[in-house]
Amino acid sequence: MAGTPLIEYADADPEVRAVFDDIKRTRNVQDVNNFWKALANDPRTLRRTWESLKEVMAPGALDPLVKEMLYLAVSVAHTCEYCIASHTAAARKRGMTDAMLGELLAVVGMASETNRLVIGWRVPVDQAFR
Amino acid sequence: MAGTPLIEYADADPEVRAVFDDIKRTRNVQDVNNFWKALANDPRTLRRTWESLKEVMAPGALDPLVKEMLYLAVSVAHTCEYCIASHTAAARKRGMTDAMLGELLAVVGMASETNRLVIGWRVPVDQAFR
Amino acid sequence: MAGTPLIEYADADPEVRAVFDDIKRTRNVQDVNNFWKALANDPRTLRRTWESLKEVMAPGALDPLVKEMLYLAVSVAHTCEYCIASHTAAARKRGMTDAMLGELLAVVGMASETNRLVIGWRVPVDQAFR
Amino acid sequence: MAGTPLIEYADADPEVRAVFDDIKRTRNVQDVNNFWKALANDPRTLRRTWESLKEVMAPGALDPLVKEMLYLAVSVAHTCEYCIASHTAAARKRGMTDAMLGELLAVVGMASETNRLVIGWRVPVDQAFR
Amino acid sequence: MAGTPLIEYADADPEVRAVFDDIKRTRNVQDVNNFWKALANDPRTLRRTWESLKEVMAPGALDPLVKEMLYLAVSVAHTCEYCIASHTAAARKRGMTDAMLGELLAVVGMASETNRLVIGWRVPVDQAFR
Amino acid sequence: MAGTPLIEYADADPEVRAVFDDIKRTRNVQDVNNFWKALANDPRTLRRTWESLKEVMAPGALDPLVKEMLYLAVSVAHTCEYCIASHTAAARKRGMTDAMLGELLAVVGMASETNRLVIGWRVPVDQAFR
Repeated sequence: MAGTPLIEYADADPEVRAVFDDIKRTRNVQDVNNFWKALANDPRTLRRTWESLKEVMAPGALDPLVKEMLYLAVSVAHTCEYCIASHTAAARKRGMTDAMLGELLAVVGMASETNRLVIGWRVPVDQAFR
Repeated sequence: MAGTPLIEYADADPEVRAVFDDIKRTRNVQDVNNFWKALANDPRTLRRTWESLKEVMAPGALDPLVKEMLYLAVSVAHTCEYCIASHTAAARKRGMTDAMLGELLAVVGMASETNRLVIGWRVPVDQAFR
Repeated sequence: MAGTPLIEYADADPEVRAVFDDIKRTRNVQDVNNFWKALANDPRTLRRTWESLKEVMAPGALDPLVKEMLYLAVSVAHTCEYCIASHTAAARKRGMTDAMLGELLAVVGMASETNRLVIGWRVPVDQAFR
Repeated sequence: MAGTPLIEYADADPEVRAVFDDIKRTRNVQDVNNFWKALANDPRTLRRTWESLKEVMAPGALDPLVKEMLYLAVSVAHTCEYCIASHTAAARKRGMTDAMLGELLAVVGMASETNRLVIGWRVPVDQAFR
Repeated sequence: MAGTPLIEYADADPEVRAVFDDIKRTRNVQDVNNFWKALANDPRTLRRTWESLKEVMAPGALDPLVKEMLYLAVSVAHTCEYCIASHTAAARKRGMTDAMLGELLAVVGMASETNRLVIGWRVPVDQAFR
Repeated sequence: MAGTPLIEYADADPEVRAVFDDIKRTRNVQDVNNFWKALANDPRTLRRTWESLKEVMAPGALDPLVKEMLYLAVSVAHTCEYCIASHTAAARKRGMTDAMLGELLAVVGMASETNRLVIGWRVPVDQAFR
């Protein structure tokens, strides 16, 4: 499904180009993904989203690979196909192996199952967790 | 919200007690959480869920703390309050610090935002990710 | 969490009373649930929702118990605590046993797990299902 | 969207083949669906998921057709297109007619609507349901 | 993904044609969308859904453009690609500009992020909001 | 459910106080909501979230009331009770009447129903919407 025009660098205005340049520099890539080319239809959201993402995904108390895997897990829970495709690629680039992907998805599946069991069985929160 | 009777060890039949014993031994705890006491209303699901969880959460290509954090991230995406409370506690027990929790939730929030932006902007998957 | 005033029969205007009367007659109950008392704040939605629900939940190709169980399953998937409480009660009234509830929730949990595995593994639809 | 290599029987190792054989025998089919061929990338999850599914979907207090319809309802609530396609086919195989499918989807739609109305109107749980 | 036969006007029975005619008249269009052609497989749900939608989307305390934008926002939150495509078109027809779409999606994204932060941080409801 | 300590102004460090001061000034309120007091446990996310929210919710192509109503609609779709409580209050402050709230929730409910019908019936996107 298309629907949204993708803005290429050559056709972008300076504000968008500046963000694209920073993404390419930060990630050391030749071109930005379609997500950014679509967001370029709304330059302020493009800039704000990139600035936020750069801050959130930077190394900190959690290393970037763990952050990418958390991102992927949430994207699976939200059924975002694009996000799954792009963050699987990003996590692999940071070192996620086939075995790690398998375990990650097994945890996501298991959590989804027990989340529903908890809700369906109407389990009251333990005093110790309050 | 109560609704489901919680089965205590003293009132449980042998099949349920065997699972409770294995949980307590494996986790080195005095008592099982309410989740297990509620699932004990359906002994086969109790047993199957515990066996699956034990296998999925065991150390492997991912370490148990990362698995707990993935579990927590999915539970937030699914708005499961009980699960958030119990897996926050479990992750802390395995070493999650305040700073790590803060970054984890920041990633979950950011992923939720971009997941919706991707869907709303109808972004086509990049050739490179197919 | 309160927030919405509940409209009691004694305080309701004739349009609302007419719907309450039909609910009580159809379900053979003394009073309507809080859901209807809350919806009474918007009489047109109250009437439309009741008329739709009455049509959808009537016996047809599926019997009312199966419909109640489907309703409950969806409510668990959507984490609607009120709906789980009320439709568990409604399904029990129509004959759902403890064993049936256990199996229902096991199916909901299992479906939730495999739904996420399918999405995370990016499984292409089989030719036979297209 | 492809992304995940599908493991065919001819290329599978013995552990995977054993699961595929059991699926084919249990379901009396010539070949397994893509879901299993994708899961075969993670043989332990393949085995565990199949064993769990076989147990959960077996005849019990609920008959297999009702279980398939519950599975389908949850898959719709989770927007899992693959799962909808495969479980619609599975339910039809077990006897779901066009009329039953229509009523099932009507219930899913109605539950989705009232789930949101309940949440949005902030309806407190009735004393009788606690 | 196909799967459901679309019922065209020429092949529809009188009950379905009557609904199609009312949709075409009300919306001043030459043909109905695929949604209605698919729902025509279940004529009662077709009629009920159209009658409800017509009532809900009519001008009232909120104008039709705001209603279309709310519809679009919910469809994004639910990852319904068809609905996003059709309601983006419907909202544009009612006057939604590129700038308005950009702001709408920015709000949806922001709400999704803070919804998860609230849940993950387990924020208690302020006394003032109860 | 408590769980997260709320940071009061008196106990906050200068970085947090600066954000709290800006929220109070911008919104012309005496104190910030619990959401901000909880986020103060992670000062960088507090600052980033507030800066983003201030930008996204500012008057633009959409007026602030419409933005608040979109925020509320998404919060209902995500079952975020805190967010529903706080954004219902915020929208009322900006002029949302009882009648507007009723229509908003009716649209959210209707969208939720048709979103699921579209998915369940597997409706292909119309050529005109691609």
